Amino acid sequence: MSSTPYQDTYSAALVIIGNEILSGRTQDTNTMWIAERLTDKGLVLSEVRVIPDIEGTIISTVNELRQKYDHVFTTGGIGPTHDDITTDSVAKAFGVDVERNAEAFRMLEEHYGLMELTAPRSKMSLIPVGATLIPNPVTAAPGFTLENVHVMAGVPRIMQAMFDHILSTIKAGKTVLSNTVNCTISESILAEGLEFIQNQYPFVSLGSYPHFRGGAMGLSLVLRSTDMETLEKATQEVIDLIRRHGEEPRALS
Amino acid sequence: MSSTPYQDTYSAALVIIGNEILSGRTQDTNTMWIAERLTDKGLVLSEVRVIPDIEGTIISTVNELRQKYDHVFTTGGIGPTHDDITTDSVAKAFGVDVERNAEAFRMLEEHYGLMELTAPRSKMSLIPVGATLIPNPVTAAPGFTLENVHVMAGVPRIMQAMFDHILSTIKAGKTVLSNTVNCTISESILAEGLEFIQNQYPFVSLGSYPHFRGGAMGLSLVLRSTDMETLEKATQEVIDLIRRHGEEPRALS
Repeated sequence: MSSTPYQDTYSAALVIIGNEILSGRTQDTNTMWIAERLTDKGLVLSEVRVIPDIEGTIISTVNELRQKYDHVFTTGGIGPTHDDITTDSVAKAFGVDVERNAEAFRMLEEHYGLMELTAPRSKMSLIPVGATLIPNPVTAAPGFTLENVHVMAGVPRIMQAMFDHILSTIKAGKTVLSNTVNCTISESILAEGLEFIQNQYPFVSLGSYPHFRGGAMGLSLVLRSTDMETLEKATQEVIDLIRRHGEEPRALS
Repeated sequence: MSSTPYQDTYSAALVIIGNEILSGRTQDTNTMWIAERLTDKGLVLSEVRVIPDIEGTIISTVNELRQKYDHVFTTGGIGPTHDDITTDSVAKAFGVDVERNAEAFRMLEEHYGLMELTAPRSKMSLIPVGATLIPNPVTAAPGFTLENVHVMAGVPRIMQAMFDHILSTIKAGKTVLSNTVNCTISESILAEGLEFIQNQYPFVSLGSYPHFRGGAMGLSLVLRSTDMETLEKATQEVIDLIRRHGEEPRALS
């Protein structure tokens, strides 16, 4: 179990592979979807990287992160086209070969039929030696897990099915609970009080997020902890701090 | 000029600092906004990292990326609260001190008035030695540029004003142009043809992105290049490929 800011949790990193997010063409939604579910399962998303489909970059990123975090999730680049180089690159990161995986071939054959199993499609049955398959209920081509690295498709619907399968197979930590307290006081005014509270609760993470909504500046104070009792105590102190500044805060759990 | 997949462009990395994206609480929109504008300006977004507000992580990330890319943009962590540690961390990455910046102090004083310039607010006038300020027309507290690292606020409205200012001060590359060709043919069917086209046009990047929309699987083929003529030729080849498979594609530039 590597270190996270929360007790009894595991750490995780997400690697988004491909050019469509980097070019500004596509709005990423996978990160938020994955982050929410990791938090529930007691896995703390500690870093996200968005990288292009360049072999050397994939290899060095995977090798750095799999040493650093308990789990690494990747999305994208496992399809049949020339820009799908994730499987080969992850195999190289681990120093293993890819092989025609009999089970993956069977999954693809069942989905497409043997006549329709063209060379590009059967490319998707090439899996690194020693990997465990992650089923794909949508388009058959599986992802795979190699040690602590989980390789998924990038298309959200397929990624989500793969991700749920992975989560059902790995050890959970303690759920990271959170409370949000909203107010309209400037964070500068609350800064000293917030720091005082943070210092009293080392196992609570207290974040201060100013925002504009409907043209007005607002402030969200977000408290996170794996311990409900400590979280509630710290939240009450934040509520009291805001009241002392003359406002009745809006609290959400 | 460091290497990107496009001719006559500069490379850039984006570092999103703070826990709100990593926890799944907030949907990131800054990446797409920044990526689109960089592409227009001939800067290629080559990597995005989302990291927590942990000093050691900020220092090592900034130091790795500023060596690797022409420009590094950071968002978040320059406010007045205890979790705003970006300024100090970036100073440490460069091995310089922070100092009370007279111009930054004047900006804050003008915005808040001397009486309202509390200790947490005046903290925002502490800027690394040698940095150039980035004005903040919304809430006064400036960002800064230190060599090739541009440190911005995380709140989108403030970040956007800072980003536009930075873009007006740095050298542009050639705009990366793109065409998109949409069809409903499976990418497996087109894979060999696409690879053939990609190999003929080394200065065009050809990406294949399957997606679900309205319950149906579709395929977007995205071509990018800084040279209009080459881009149009390669796009025509993709259109011809799809027609040879019996479909009339929908092309967008």
